[in-house]
Amino acid sequence: MSRVVILGAGVMGSAFSLPLADAGCEVALVGTHLDRALIEGVRKDARHPKLNALLPQGVRAFHHEDLATVLDAGADLVVLGVSSAGVEWAIDRLQPLLSSVKPPILMLTKGLIDESGRLGIFPTRVEAALGCPVGGVGGPCIAGELAVRRHTGTVVSFDDPALIARVLTMLDAPYYHPRASTDLVGVEACAALKNFMALGIGAALGQLDISEPVDNKAQMHNHAAGLFNQALLELDHINGALGGDPATVRGLAGTGDLYVTVQGGRNSRMGRLLGAGWRYGRAKAERMAEDTVEGAELALSVGGTMLAMIGRGELDAARLPLSRAILRAVRDDEPFVVPWNDFAR
Amino acid sequence: MSRVVILGAGVMGSAFSLPLADAGCEVALVGTHLDRALIEGVRKDARHPKLNALLPQGVRAFHHEDLATVLDAGADLVVLGVSSAGVEWAIDRLQPLLSSVKPPILMLTKGLIDESGRLGIFPTRVEAALGCPVGGVGGPCIAGELAVRRHTGTVVSFDDPALIARVLTMLDAPYYHPRASTDLVGVEACAALKNFMALGIGAALGQLDISEPVDNKAQMHNHAAGLFNQALLELDHINGALGGDPATVRGLAGTGDLYVTVQGGRNSRMGRLLGAGWRYGRAKAERMAEDTVEGAELALSVGGTMLAMIGRGELDAARLPLSRAILRAVRDDEPFVVPWNDFAR
Repeated sequence: MSRVVILGAGVMGSAFSLPLADAGCEVALVGTHLDRALIEGVRKDARHPKLNALLPQGVRAFHHEDLATVLDAGADLVVLGVSSAGVEWAIDRLQPLLSSVKPPILMLTKGLIDESGRLGIFPTRVEAALGCPVGGVGGPCIAGELAVRRHTGTVVSFDDPALIARVLTMLDAPYYHPRASTDLVGVEACAALKNFMALGIGAALGQLDISEPVDNKAQMHNHAAGLFNQALLELDHINGALGGDPATVRGLAGTGDLYVTVQGGRNSRMGRLLGAGWRYGRAKAERMAEDTVEGAELALSVGGTMLAMIGRGELDAARLPLSRAILRAVRDDEPFVVPWNDFAR
Repeated sequence: MSRVVILGAGVMGSAFSLPLADAGCEVALVGTHLDRALIEGVRKDARHPKLNALLPQGVRAFHHEDLATVLDAGADLVVLGVSSAGVEWAIDRLQPLLSSVKPPILMLTKGLIDESGRLGIFPTRVEAALGCPVGGVGGPCIAGELAVRRHTGTVVSFDDPALIARVLTMLDAPYYHPRASTDLVGVEACAALKNFMALGIGAALGQLDISEPVDNKAQMHNHAAGLFNQALLELDHINGALGGDPATVRGLAGTGDLYVTVQGGRNSRMGRLLGAGWRYGRAKAERMAEDTVEGAELALSVGGTMLAMIGRGELDAARLPLSRAILRAVRDDEPFVVPWNDFAR
């Protein structure tokens, strides 16, 4: 029986315990300092308060003070389910505990970082800091659906195919359908950028909000489809520039995940506000002050890196009209305008 | 000023008059024998009864008895907006009228035909019968949205780039964003097959309908995203086998149109019934007797051709698990089962 330690008891880390436990793993779910109430909830009656779903019996819940004890008992896999802002915290906590043992680490956390002036992925940073092999999971996975065992197809990626195969056996639940990929850069780039692109796609709904009423109840699906398609083309361009495999964009990690992301969620909500004419700063302050809008956070944290790559010709401005419009809206607080005339012809 | 004759006054043919008229074309909208009430409606107050929207002033509406007179006045472009079942009728009507003049024909009608045992496209058939250059329009275009001038990006395809350029100037309206493509096979294959694929993707919603109630209101978006992604991979495979360009599948004609198609419509509704456990025959008879379900019609008309191509190794069965499941459900009236284990890994 494999032992798996999940660090981070938010919705995604906790939902990931389902396929692991159902595949027969012994799972320790360890909360961060922000997850105290969640861990208490799971301990009380196995119900995760935010997922509003029962975690399987095999899942034991711990506060982060117990992390050393939990890891001492051995771990065949460590799953990192902290927020992107929590990655450095997790590194600090894990560094002393993983000085001698080097279990593989699977990241659920998504984001991009600046790596010497270029866009880089979290696993590179974590692997450099901890010396463990680090991979990631991509693909369309709404946590609340996984938590009630709805069919979910994902992509599990490490550099090492043998390691992927080992991790896939730990996830062999009937409703969970992970694919193997050695394109870690592509999987991570798609997972992070889909949130960013969802800002632009969500704008279609915002434009509908402020459009003249019509007799025939027409929506803005044509418009949204055009944005969705352009977003994928731009994702493909950025992914290629980072060294990712084009097949990843066309697979679950790219197309599939973007599809699920635009079904709702915070990035789509912010995009809708932008599409309705709100400036980003005011929309964030007045309408989404309490929400983490990951796509916007990405624009703020590595938007400058993207623009620098455009400036150096590593990314082609002409192929990124939607991305540049999103960057202008979020970074410069300018009105968001859909650049239809610049879209791929 | 270009003169354009649209044959077929259903929702798509009629909505197409908007960008043409707004770009300054003189448009004659000619109804088929099934469109008599629609033409009368447009004549009365310019409002199309099914679109529930006003057609522009420049659009004049005619019954099909006037087709000869209308064409005699000259046509720089003929747009074919009949149903797929009406293509042969349209050929019969147009043949004597286009014996000396050979205007380009742009097909809105979508479907695939058997061409010597392989899947073929309508434009080949129409071009052979009429001797005019024949192209097609693809991409995400809900007629009711176009009819109220919502942003719509499409793909206009002829073999001849100069002809495409000429047609694009006839469509130069501010809300209409046509791209040029010489991949007519790809554009037509995507346009027809998206309806077929939508049957499979719609099944996710049907499975939700019959799933156990859950506390957290989880939907089936993960499942739908997996189906959407698999559908695109299978579309890519079929398109490639027919000689289409892979870029077409990744563009508006493929990805964009599939995206819009699964937002609703008859194919998605039938897919939902199949996903909920209905057999196709009963679902059609009891729930959708009056509806043309184009994806199912395609399965019935050229499903045998697809299977024959699989049998001869021109299509790879292993890469078409979703398509084969749809064919079994529609052609053989078997239960529709999502073949997750056969999906691309």
